[in-house]
Amino acid sequence: MTAGLETPPVGASVGASVLALRLTESAAATDSPVCPNASFDTWFARHREANRFTVARIPFAQLSGWSFRESDGNLVHTSGGFFSVVGLEVNTDWQGRGTWAQPILDQPEVGVLGILVKEFDGVLHCLMQAKMEPGNPDTVQLSPTVQATRSNYTGVHGGRRTTFLEYFTDPDRSTLVDSLQSEQGSWFLRKRNRNMVVEVTGEVPDHENFRWLTLGQIHRLLGDDNVVNMDTRSVVACMPFTAPAGPRRLDAGAGSGAAAASRYREVLGLSLSGRGGALHDMEGILGWLTEAKARREFSRRLLPLSGVYGWHRSDTEISHAEGRHFTVVAVDVRAETREVTDWSQPLIAPVEQGVAAFVVRPIDGVLHVLMHAKVEAGLLDVCELAPTVQCLPVNYADLPPERRPAHLETVLRAPAEAVRFDAVLSEEGGRFHHADNRYLVVEVGEDFPVEQGPDHRWMTVHQLMDLVRHSRYLNVQARSLLACLRTTW
Amino acid sequence: MTAGLETPPVGASVGASVLALRLTESAAATDSPVCPNASFDTWFARHREANRFTVARIPFAQLSGWSFRESDGNLVHTSGGFFSVVGLEVNTDWQGRGTWAQPILDQPEVGVLGILVKEFDGVLHCLMQAKMEPGNPDTVQLSPTVQATRSNYTGVHGGRRTTFLEYFTDPDRSTLVDSLQSEQGSWFLRKRNRNMVVEVTGEVPDHENFRWLTLGQIHRLLGDDNVVNMDTRSVVACMPFTAPAGPRRLDAGAGSGAAAASRYREVLGLSLSGRGGALHDMEGILGWLTEAKARREFSRRLLPLSGVYGWHRSDTEISHAEGRHFTVVAVDVRAETREVTDWSQPLIAPVEQGVAAFVVRPIDGVLHVLMHAKVEAGLLDVCELAPTVQCLPVNYADLPPERRPAHLETVLRAPAEAVRFDAVLSEEGGRFHHADNRYLVVEVGEDFPVEQGPDHRWMTVHQLMDLVRHSRYLNVQARSLLACLRTTW
Repeated sequence: MTAGLETPPVGASVGASVLALRLTESAAATDSPVCPNASFDTWFARHREANRFTVARIPFAQLSGWSFRESDGNLVHTSGGFFSVVGLEVNTDWQGRGTWAQPILDQPEVGVLGILVKEFDGVLHCLMQAKMEPGNPDTVQLSPTVQATRSNYTGVHGGRRTTFLEYFTDPDRSTLVDSLQSEQGSWFLRKRNRNMVVEVTGEVPDHENFRWLTLGQIHRLLGDDNVVNMDTRSVVACMPFTAPAGPRRLDAGAGSGAAAASRYREVLGLSLSGRGGALHDMEGILGWLTEAKARREFSRRLLPLSGVYGWHRSDTEISHAEGRHFTVVAVDVRAETREVTDWSQPLIAPVEQGVAAFVVRPIDGVLHVLMHAKVEAGLLDVCELAPTVQCLPVNYADLPPERRPAHLETVLRAPAEAVRFDAVLSEEGGRFHHADNRYLVVEVGEDFPVEQGPDHRWMTVHQLMDLVRHSRYLNVQARSLLACLRTTW
Repeated sequence: MTAGLETPPVGASVGASVLALRLTESAAATDSPVCPNASFDTWFARHREANRFTVARIPFAQLSGWSFRESDGNLVHTSGGFFSVVGLEVNTDWQGRGTWAQPILDQPEVGVLGILVKEFDGVLHCLMQAKMEPGNPDTVQLSPTVQATRSNYTGVHGGRRTTFLEYFTDPDRSTLVDSLQSEQGSWFLRKRNRNMVVEVTGEVPDHENFRWLTLGQIHRLLGDDNVVNMDTRSVVACMPFTAPAGPRRLDAGAGSGAAAASRYREVLGLSLSGRGGALHDMEGILGWLTEAKARREFSRRLLPLSGVYGWHRSDTEISHAEGRHFTVVAVDVRAETREVTDWSQPLIAPVEQGVAAFVVRPIDGVLHVLMHAKVEAGLLDVCELAPTVQCLPVNYADLPPERRPAHLETVLRAPAEAVRFDAVLSEEGGRFHHADNRYLVVEVGEDFPVEQGPDHRWMTVHQLMDLVRHSRYLNVQARSLLACLRTTW
């Protein structure tokens, strides 16, 4: 089936904005004199070394400032701030899942994830932070300039004010990107954070925990396991982007590998720029997503955490009766460089490493990504666009093949030459404990069927970037992968 | 301040889609041989005459199938279907409103509002229904082809299947428009309906309650009080639209009135087509809306209806202690032509007629609409774009001027020649009892300040149409006014 793509209507939005061109130029700069890669690596390694800290599992009873509330058993902070662990019951006919109950994080306030950008020698650089989070597998990761919950900036926890936050609250700021985006729908109830990019032209004070990097330098780091944190990936994914103007220098050697790489970059370039057309026009995609949301039953209600059935609470964890999904744990954290020095808190710990993968293939010469309209318990509006595959395999291990996630085998058994991106990246370390996902971009060939079931649709990268300007189209794993995919250009 | 508009970037989306051109052509057809205006008027008057029915206020205790549930006092239907009246508590620092409790309608399922369109002699016609709803001030109004709750099409109420619904559920249908849109945020908790336009090419059976009308014929009727119902206005507003290609024939007489009308149509034409540029680009508008949502505190929780404070329940109504907002009432309905013949149900009855108005003015030769980022208790995500003014004036009567709705005086005191649209239109008669709003489009001059407070922004009509393709940007009153405004071209 290649009956010809929908070509954009006359005058349609395929031209790149000035901002997209500037960011693309920044992505083309794979190194920079402002903070050369070599000195970045030294600086970052030193931070990881200097900021070793201890995260110890403790019984819930030893949490300081947190307790199970008598009335409903919810795990809450004394201040009423931060977040709480509550119960949720979901009833849906999606994927034959029926009714279930689960613990979920409730954090109704809107936080800020912000990257400050500034031109050096005409090239945009991003102010990135070496930041420790208690749940990170590798302690310190590369974070946006600012990660601030509303508690952070209103000072509920009595800590220091978030560094550089004032650039994001200045009413006269130059805002380049500003949208509300969802976070893990299986773990968070209706969570959203503000993803911002703000440009400065004046002097910004140096700070030992921060370095200016081009988007190309961030791309380099994205391929490393557990270096670029989730919040950075999310904000980077919201940056508009296009394709390089000229042909790109190939790093690969000679031979068929180089030819395949060259062809991949060509089809990706047309997908990034939007100049190649798309299998479905935007009206078709929006209508398909509406149909996906409206077709199924989906209702949910809050439960007291003490009323969540199918889960067990011990002194040290709340866990699923069959060992699936995640556990809620408590940790004690001792470190030097966070806003407050010692604290304890609950975290969600998934029971194993997850998989999040884009299956991509050229359709009529333009790279398309197979997106999944996936229901998740806590999403604001039932479902968002998720990666082709997003799961913890253990949750499906006992199920018959037809109830396992579509395309999981394709992704896990892909030959090495088809894997365009492969790194283990963790979810937000402030709420999740060692929540690793293996992020993959897997290219499939023309024999992979274009026809897919009602929950999947092929889209170009340009279409994904058009949607991510708005809130809540791409879930957080899809945004991570969008950022990863753009490193493969 | 007219420092020049943001002109669209090279290649930006200012070209009209084929669909927009076809619908604009339909709007230019102010009469049609398929159902000429004169015969429509006769047919419609006959329907109103033939379908007189009785809607009588009754005590809650006489409701059939509805009762106040013992556990929480919520007003629910025996089937668990339809909707229920529950309690909500809201806490917000928007507009200094603080904390309040109120009854609210909870109807979690997604209904379908659908208009079937078909070409006759190359011009698109809409299949419109003469439909009675118990709360309508004038009994029968002009409805979309289909208004179906999920209860309607799953048959919860045991009535007849909704006529023509199969065109909207056919998997091979040709869908032109399909988005989820909110309804009254002050009266509904997280309500959304699917707004659909589906095209057919084959024969559609005649039905005595339905007639094919061009968009131009619907425009004619929109100017009459209480003829075109809310659901029609909402779906029509979701249809893409552009400006007529040539200059439009002027109906006005000679002299300065004709000159003003001609000038108005010119600036409106540029605003409809997007060819004139806009004061703010789309990124700026999206960022402003994000800021509006994130800036303020907003939290809410369900209450048992019996726990709603500040409201009184008598045998016949639930009313606000100070006589503001609305009352919840019960009605007994006797009629012949609805899906079921006799029934009783609760309705929400606002305490007086509301005002919903667009203030518009040319900015650098392009008509702009002043939109309001307005918080409403039941909206899915805090606030949406509302008309410049949207209120029941009585709710603000005792407040000092600075706490009254901005621009209310401008709207109510506008000179006749500045009023581009003025009709009394009611909200959905299946849930609301005589919920009239006076819908106004008021043009202001160059002396009206372009600078506005943080909750208002000027947008072109083209930008509004770009946003309404997505869910939940324009609230239902803004969609009504967008439909009304487009009749003034």
